[in-house]
Amino acid sequence: MPNISQRGIEMPQSPIRKLVPLANEAKARGIKVYHLNIGQPDLPTPPNALEALKHIDRKVLEYSPSEGLRSLREKLVTYYQKFNINVDVDDIIITTGGSEAVLFAFMACLDPGDEIIVPEPAYANYMAFAISAGAVIKTLPSSIENGFAMPPLEEFEKLITPRTKGILICNPNNPTGYLYTQKEMNQLRDIVKNHNLFLFSDEVYREFCYTGAPYISAFHLPGIENQVVLIDSVSKRYSECGIRIGAIITKHKELKKNVMKFCQARLSPPLIGQIIAEASIDASTEYMLDTYNEYVDRRKFLIDSINKIHGCYSPIPMGAFYTVARLPVDNADSFCEWCLRDFQYEGQTVFMAPASGFYTTPGLGINEVRLAYVINKEDLARAMEVLEHALVAYPGYTL
Amino acid sequence: MPNISQRGIEMPQSPIRKLVPLANEAKARGIKVYHLNIGQPDLPTPPNALEALKHIDRKVLEYSPSEGLRSLREKLVTYYQKFNINVDVDDIIITTGGSEAVLFAFMACLDPGDEIIVPEPAYANYMAFAISAGAVIKTLPSSIENGFAMPPLEEFEKLITPRTKGILICNPNNPTGYLYTQKEMNQLRDIVKNHNLFLFSDEVYREFCYTGAPYISAFHLPGIENQVVLIDSVSKRYSECGIRIGAIITKHKELKKNVMKFCQARLSPPLIGQIIAEASIDASTEYMLDTYNEYVDRRKFLIDSINKIHGCYSPIPMGAFYTVARLPVDNADSFCEWCLRDFQYEGQTVFMAPASGFYTTPGLGINEVRLAYVINKEDLARAMEVLEHALVAYPGYTL
Repeated sequence: MPNISQRGIEMPQSPIRKLVPLANEAKARGIKVYHLNIGQPDLPTPPNALEALKHIDRKVLEYSPSEGLRSLREKLVTYYQKFNINVDVDDIIITTGGSEAVLFAFMACLDPGDEIIVPEPAYANYMAFAISAGAVIKTLPSSIENGFAMPPLEEFEKLITPRTKGILICNPNNPTGYLYTQKEMNQLRDIVKNHNLFLFSDEVYREFCYTGAPYISAFHLPGIENQVVLIDSVSKRYSECGIRIGAIITKHKELKKNVMKFCQARLSPPLIGQIIAEASIDASTEYMLDTYNEYVDRRKFLIDSINKIHGCYSPIPMGAFYTVARLPVDNADSFCEWCLRDFQYEGQTVFMAPASGFYTTPGLGINEVRLAYVINKEDLARAMEVLEHALVAYPGYTL
Repeated sequence: MPNISQRGIEMPQSPIRKLVPLANEAKARGIKVYHLNIGQPDLPTPPNALEALKHIDRKVLEYSPSEGLRSLREKLVTYYQKFNINVDVDDIIITTGGSEAVLFAFMACLDPGDEIIVPEPAYANYMAFAISAGAVIKTLPSSIENGFAMPPLEEFEKLITPRTKGILICNPNNPTGYLYTQKEMNQLRDIVKNHNLFLFSDEVYREFCYTGAPYISAFHLPGIENQVVLIDSVSKRYSECGIRIGAIITKHKELKKNVMKFCQARLSPPLIGQIIAEASIDASTEYMLDTYNEYVDRRKFLIDSINKIHGCYSPIPMGAFYTVARLPVDNADSFCEWCLRDFQYEGQTVFMAPASGFYTTPGLGINEVRLAYVINKEDLARAMEVLEHALVAYPGYTL
């Protein structure tokens, strides 16, 4: 048999994926598993978007333009204006989810051996897309002690080499829920400007900022407009992860042309998804507010609950729908596995994402987990009760 | 401004794309443009598939599994059985169109510098996906003189180096419409087996074989079952290019795992597209037969017409919905451009794809064009009339 690619062998498998079979086995044993591990919102897709789907009246489901439907891109221009992000319709290229946006941004900006700097913990799939592009991710640790604030300027400077082509941030952050401050974003602008770097900014959670602190888009930073590559997706904000619609937004003319070549090679983003996404942007204020309030409520409840458990600590996440919490365990990988394989409390257990999978520096996040609040409050309450019992029963409990 | 990637700069831009602005300008001048250039069928999507779309009754349009919906994969198993292709549900991984199938097949099999051999003329985007993966495509010319038959065994052998990892074919072929014979496929099997190569076989046009000659799938070849990587897509056979559903089919266990890592990184293929694709497999016999008969009819008409034009020649394509024809012109690139920019006959012109874009060997295909019969017969008739007039009016006419 011919050999498979080394590139594929090097691709990390998400630690969450590794635990899925254990979760399925637990369910097969009749155990109720609370999913705190995933980024799939349970909230409904906007009703008007579902209506738009039912009213598609085409006889041929044909290719859309490689850059996406103009009507969708025009609607996005207006959407971004509400956030004081001023872009033209030609600055927006529709992609097959935020995933393809990251992959094509890397492919179009980075050559094999080129480096980008990413604060960690970070969304694990960034690494997979970097490996696909042959690029190198250098991570810069942030710490639970200061709520996962941006690492200091000097730390970025230390990692910059002649091969450094960009910095990648996720804001509000997955997995930490951190929202970068104006001061931090200004600092980032200075580095990006001084070293002539790309700033890849994944801002898919912008609708979910909870503290009144301002959301600072990379496009709000003066003087680096041509260096920003904004990654977006409708998946999270309209609870429609399955339609696979995202976008790359850039004002860098040559980069647009480069991205378009990758877009043309794959012909077209999904047609139906674009129709749904376009309708979603018109979701009612009531829908958007209900969704927002639900997350606000769950966030408060989850963070309060976890911090009440002896030995647990979570900073207060300012955005997105995740938090990274520290648990009184020797090893969160083992603990998460144990919860699924060996534990139950009144026929229930919890599925959490070990935080180690979001770090590349060995040893970091060893006693941390990512918790997503994408289940309802009643289930969250039960999950926290289960977690409390699991901790004291776990052989590696450190208290 | 930071520099874009060299990889992107090297990506070829399809010669068809280059002509699109000229076609748009012609339309703006009020000229009727007959599109013989595209691979977008004009025939309707199966009515039951459009019905399935209207009856989607989900409240959350969530991620589907990274490998695709099990129900779709099970239905594909049954579909392939009709073609005597025996695969398990776990051999099938759903992708975002055939495009992603090719990209992920390359990413999972090939490392930078690895080589694959492709008979040319070939689908132009294979090259783009190879560049994305850092792989090298070596092309082997086939010739219009013998109807684009497979190049002889010895020619393949000459191109094989220690870096050769596979051979890629498209069968029935885009752009030539050629259908590989049993003898040719056996020859391919021997090379693949003797040199321990992957056989990437793009068989998206299998429904469209017109001559009674058998369709030989790569999976029909005994002894190389673990070396075959079949590329599939529902786009062409059900006229639903916009839903972006394809598949990679392989029995190579390690390769499946490798492909799945790329699939997991991008999370999920399009949910709605999968629902439509699943319904499409149940398209009525009447629908499938009507579609088939329509292409049979157009094919006969187009090939007869083109061969009646003085100095033109097209072999008889055995499958797909394209042919590559030789025209009495000095340069088909210039001629196709001239048709759009400088010519009209009774307010009409033709948009053809210069064949040079399907070859990598310089100079090949210089007086050839690809014609797609995805417009109705009346329009095809007018297009041929326009072509006949265009040829004699063209300054580079060689007769």
